[in-house]
Amino acid sequence: MILETIEKENDIKNVAPENWNLLAEEIREFLINKISVTGGHLGSNLGAVELTMALHLSLNLPQDKIVWDVGHQSYTHKLLTGRRAGFENLRKYGGMSGFPKRKESNCDCFDTGHSSTSISAGLGLVKARDLRNEDHTIVSVIGDGSLTGGMAYEALNNAARIKRNFIIVLNDNNMSISENVGGMSKYLNNIRTADKYLDMKEGIYNSLMESKLGEPIVSSIRKAKSSVKQLVIPGMFFEDMGITYLGPVDGHNINAMLKVFREAKRCKSAVLVHVITQKGKGFAPAEKHPARFHGAEPFDVKTGLPLIPKTKSNYTDVFSTVMCKLGDRYDDIVAITAAMPDGTGLKRFKNMYPERFFDVGIAEEHAVTFAAGLAAGGMRPVVAIYSSFLQRAYDQILHDVCIQNLPVVFAIDRAGLVGSDGETHQGIFDLSYLSSIPNMHIMAPKNKWELSDMMKFAIDFHGPIAIRYPRGEAYDGLREYRAPISFGEAEWIYQEKTIALVAVGSMVKTALTVREELIQKGFACSVINARFVKPIDTQILDEAAKTHRLIVTMEENVASGGFGEKVRDYLDRHCPDVKLLNIHIPDEYVEHGNVDILRREVGIDAGTIGQKVLALMR
Amino acid sequence: MILETIEKENDIKNVAPENWNLLAEEIREFLINKISVTGGHLGSNLGAVELTMALHLSLNLPQDKIVWDVGHQSYTHKLLTGRRAGFENLRKYGGMSGFPKRKESNCDCFDTGHSSTSISAGLGLVKARDLRNEDHTIVSVIGDGSLTGGMAYEALNNAARIKRNFIIVLNDNNMSISENVGGMSKYLNNIRTADKYLDMKEGIYNSLMESKLGEPIVSSIRKAKSSVKQLVIPGMFFEDMGITYLGPVDGHNINAMLKVFREAKRCKSAVLVHVITQKGKGFAPAEKHPARFHGAEPFDVKTGLPLIPKTKSNYTDVFSTVMCKLGDRYDDIVAITAAMPDGTGLKRFKNMYPERFFDVGIAEEHAVTFAAGLAAGGMRPVVAIYSSFLQRAYDQILHDVCIQNLPVVFAIDRAGLVGSDGETHQGIFDLSYLSSIPNMHIMAPKNKWELSDMMKFAIDFHGPIAIRYPRGEAYDGLREYRAPISFGEAEWIYQEKTIALVAVGSMVKTALTVREELIQKGFACSVINARFVKPIDTQILDEAAKTHRLIVTMEENVASGGFGEKVRDYLDRHCPDVKLLNIHIPDEYVEHGNVDILRREVGIDAGTIGQKVLALMR
Repeated sequence: MILETIEKENDIKNVAPENWNLLAEEIREFLINKISVTGGHLGSNLGAVELTMALHLSLNLPQDKIVWDVGHQSYTHKLLTGRRAGFENLRKYGGMSGFPKRKESNCDCFDTGHSSTSISAGLGLVKARDLRNEDHTIVSVIGDGSLTGGMAYEALNNAARIKRNFIIVLNDNNMSISENVGGMSKYLNNIRTADKYLDMKEGIYNSLMESKLGEPIVSSIRKAKSSVKQLVIPGMFFEDMGITYLGPVDGHNINAMLKVFREAKRCKSAVLVHVITQKGKGFAPAEKHPARFHGAEPFDVKTGLPLIPKTKSNYTDVFSTVMCKLGDRYDDIVAITAAMPDGTGLKRFKNMYPERFFDVGIAEEHAVTFAAGLAAGGMRPVVAIYSSFLQRAYDQILHDVCIQNLPVVFAIDRAGLVGSDGETHQGIFDLSYLSSIPNMHIMAPKNKWELSDMMKFAIDFHGPIAIRYPRGEAYDGLREYRAPISFGEAEWIYQEKTIALVAVGSMVKTALTVREELIQKGFACSVINARFVKPIDTQILDEAAKTHRLIVTMEENVASGGFGEKVRDYLDRHCPDVKLLNIHIPDEYVEHGNVDILRREVGIDAGTIGQKVLALMR
Repeated sequence: MILETIEKENDIKNVAPENWNLLAEEIREFLINKISVTGGHLGSNLGAVELTMALHLSLNLPQDKIVWDVGHQSYTHKLLTGRRAGFENLRKYGGMSGFPKRKESNCDCFDTGHSSTSISAGLGLVKARDLRNEDHTIVSVIGDGSLTGGMAYEALNNAARIKRNFIIVLNDNNMSISENVGGMSKYLNNIRTADKYLDMKEGIYNSLMESKLGEPIVSSIRKAKSSVKQLVIPGMFFEDMGITYLGPVDGHNINAMLKVFREAKRCKSAVLVHVITQKGKGFAPAEKHPARFHGAEPFDVKTGLPLIPKTKSNYTDVFSTVMCKLGDRYDDIVAITAAMPDGTGLKRFKNMYPERFFDVGIAEEHAVTFAAGLAAGGMRPVVAIYSSFLQRAYDQILHDVCIQNLPVVFAIDRAGLVGSDGETHQGIFDLSYLSSIPNMHIMAPKNKWELSDMMKFAIDFHGPIAIRYPRGEAYDGLREYRAPISFGEAEWIYQEKTIALVAVGSMVKTALTVREELIQKGFACSVINARFVKPIDTQILDEAAKTHRLIVTMEENVASGGFGEKVRDYLDRHCPDVKLLNIHIPDEYVEHGNVDILRREVGIDAGTIGQKVLALMR
């Protein structure tokens, strides 16, 4: 095994060129075997094997730096920097992260997770390098999908101004760019990286000058500095901004990439290297179903089928179904996703009502203001974005939707702990950042039927309203508790005395377990399903305060700005005699790992809650 | 006066074309006279007089819709839609807003305030129109500055896909685009809007075919669908995306614009009309000093000089000075602004240390992640962004700076009530949205010297830290209270008993007034300067709780997620016997108006606070 000879960064340089393809094969086999057991991002990593090898062959780590946009394609980078053993516990609690982490290796220069950040971060590293008079190479690797995010454009706009080297690798795996300019690109690729490039420009210029009609054009072109260059370049979009464009180059041909990277390192400017790769390359099921193998659960290597077949539906499925029903009932409902038709469950809505479905790309800011425009125009928009990605649109929610009190429904999936993706993806801030926005309203369902009921309620609501629900299996208990959703009203699940558990969404199920334990210990215990996080139901709190000694709030959100703080604020002012215990995630980032383990670690599991409650009752 | 004949929308259509220029003159005179008294945005409005007239002549309001990006250039629009009288109380409390407001007129179709939102909102209106089978024209007017914001690009990227009419007017007033492609643009403008355009394309094509070297090029071009078009168009950036480009056209020539708008309305796609205007047009001082007359205080019409000369320095000046000093002391300090070198006070730093100064354009998201990259590269970045604009970078602060615990200093100007710009610009959410982010720290200075001391403290701090300070005159009282800033420690200003006022930043000054009143009523009263909002100083709270009957928190921030909630959370858990009163802005948007009036309206003025405290003490 060649792979076994690679124990640290730069070891790859000892591999003979004739063995590069063999090594790539070994890496693919390794990744498929490991990810089939642990789960993880497969397609993007299989697509970036040779690209990563070429970068490592071209660079000198850790002096040189690679910033991986999003970061889920960094597995080969981890393999080539001495982290082979880490794959045993990939994305497990205490194990190796599925994303670049500075604390994991000095070859990881910048943590990523969300999309479209790598050029900004890379440009910061470039400016730091230049101001410190250092001399190393900085490479930002960004996918074509990430390039639809506005901040990538903001960064390109700024990168265009620099006069020192900065390499941006466009890892183009869905051919969206190359299709448009395919013929031209291929033709020009042969001449772009060699000195024929200048001849080419000269050639166009001369041929225009020879022609009758060409003369006035060339005369105008002359006045415009950069236009001659623009005449012959496929990546005009980039050159237009002032960024040198090289490519496209085959991202599975290491020699071709080495040649282009050599060229790129010589540029005294930002240079974009356009690399064409295939997502899932080398594993037939992933090549065929790129979406399914983007983030894969453990699977059978032979068939590609999941090892643990899904039996119960998850909240995404429930949302998917209710959206289709609502779409049928109301022809003014429109659905918006930011590049997540599968992940959010909107694909079925898209198939049924293609004209009322909008995938705006990785562009959460635009998604929200676009929804505000649709609402102002008389439609009923539903914006479906994961909790941690919606952070991107905080200002748009506050400034474009809520000031005008527009009826936009936010369907917030992956709210709460998401597990193995870790810190960047945990949806544990939404209750905080949404609560402080005036006119916003927030709900969280206790089970699958309630998500459906809440969607129906939200669609008829007159202002901005959010429904947050967690990743994974939808709770299907408490089916008989299906009282109509009424604005701002919580729901008694058990109305007893002594202790009242007031639980938000996913925590209702946990509350039932806590209650069982408390009853066993001899305490009567009520359970309230909060339903609304904003506004809080002060009437039910008043009632609970009168008949209970202890009120316990339970939420899957950080403490600061969350549900518990709001309840405490109310009770302390209006019912100061009742004791209050807030159960929440501490104000810290939560690493990757199995959700059940994480819940225990942060203290929101039934066991920990039970102990805390009992300690207070003693 | 022709202007007086315009009482409502569309009345302008009764003005004879030969009087259009006269009307433009009258509008300019009106605006200069009114704004010289009330203050307001002058330069952008003087630049957009003819553009607005041409739009109103071309459209049929309110059926047709105009979305004004940022919105501060909408004064002529207000004049032409029956709001002439409103200028008496422009930007005054209860008076007319300086921005478009749906609740003000049915000719205002979408509220704006922050930059770069208009294309997203306009596209939403377009999709709503088409889905409802309506037939009207939608125009988004965006400045060239706003086009540097990423969400404008996200929106263009999506607008490029539509097959129905959507007009985007690029109001280009600093010539940043036209300079680059000036000669080419001028030449092509003559032929673009006529049918000669197609001949032109044909011409280039033919001239290339005639030439020897041209043949292989044309053969490649043929394979690439849109490349021929791209060869001859100045707005290649837009055409590259699939948006029809028309222009440039003189934005002070109404007839020229009418012709282009007619052309634009015929396009079955998104069409960008490139209009060249001059900021401050027609008022010599504003033409000469565009930055000074962007948002003007009342001024002398003859000289252009402010009526009330500035005597005391404001917090921006203090920040400006300390940044220059720090820049001298440490050569690793870098400063970042998002298009606000004047507004943030960084212009002096820029002049002294041009290599360490970065104006990234209106690109708050990039600004923050760029700073994170600089910090990861070993520099000490200071990001200076207004409180309400920093909302744009919430995710970047949370995801790129704070997860990695990078030492980025956030200098947050315009925190608290800002006054006449109103809802969109009030900096009343920062304590909430920053507090819930792990690893973030927040300070607020009581006076000018403390801002300086806090900046020095922050620069040496090991992680993310924010300093928030208000717009306007810097408080220069309490000079003698200058104990060194110590992490997480508040400061006793008066240590007495009975009542303790714990004030954040700007509220310390108010607390002194409240204290005077309480003393007069016979109550002893302490004043604590919080200094740190995160972490809160629990030790001083313990101490205060022991020796006081009532603790009063005072902050210029909304209730939800703010300082008061955090203090209540702590005291309720650890010192339940002390009474607590939270003074804050209610969880509502605050309209425009004089800051003193607004403070009274929201109940954070000394008088109201005093009454509330006395009511509790009785």
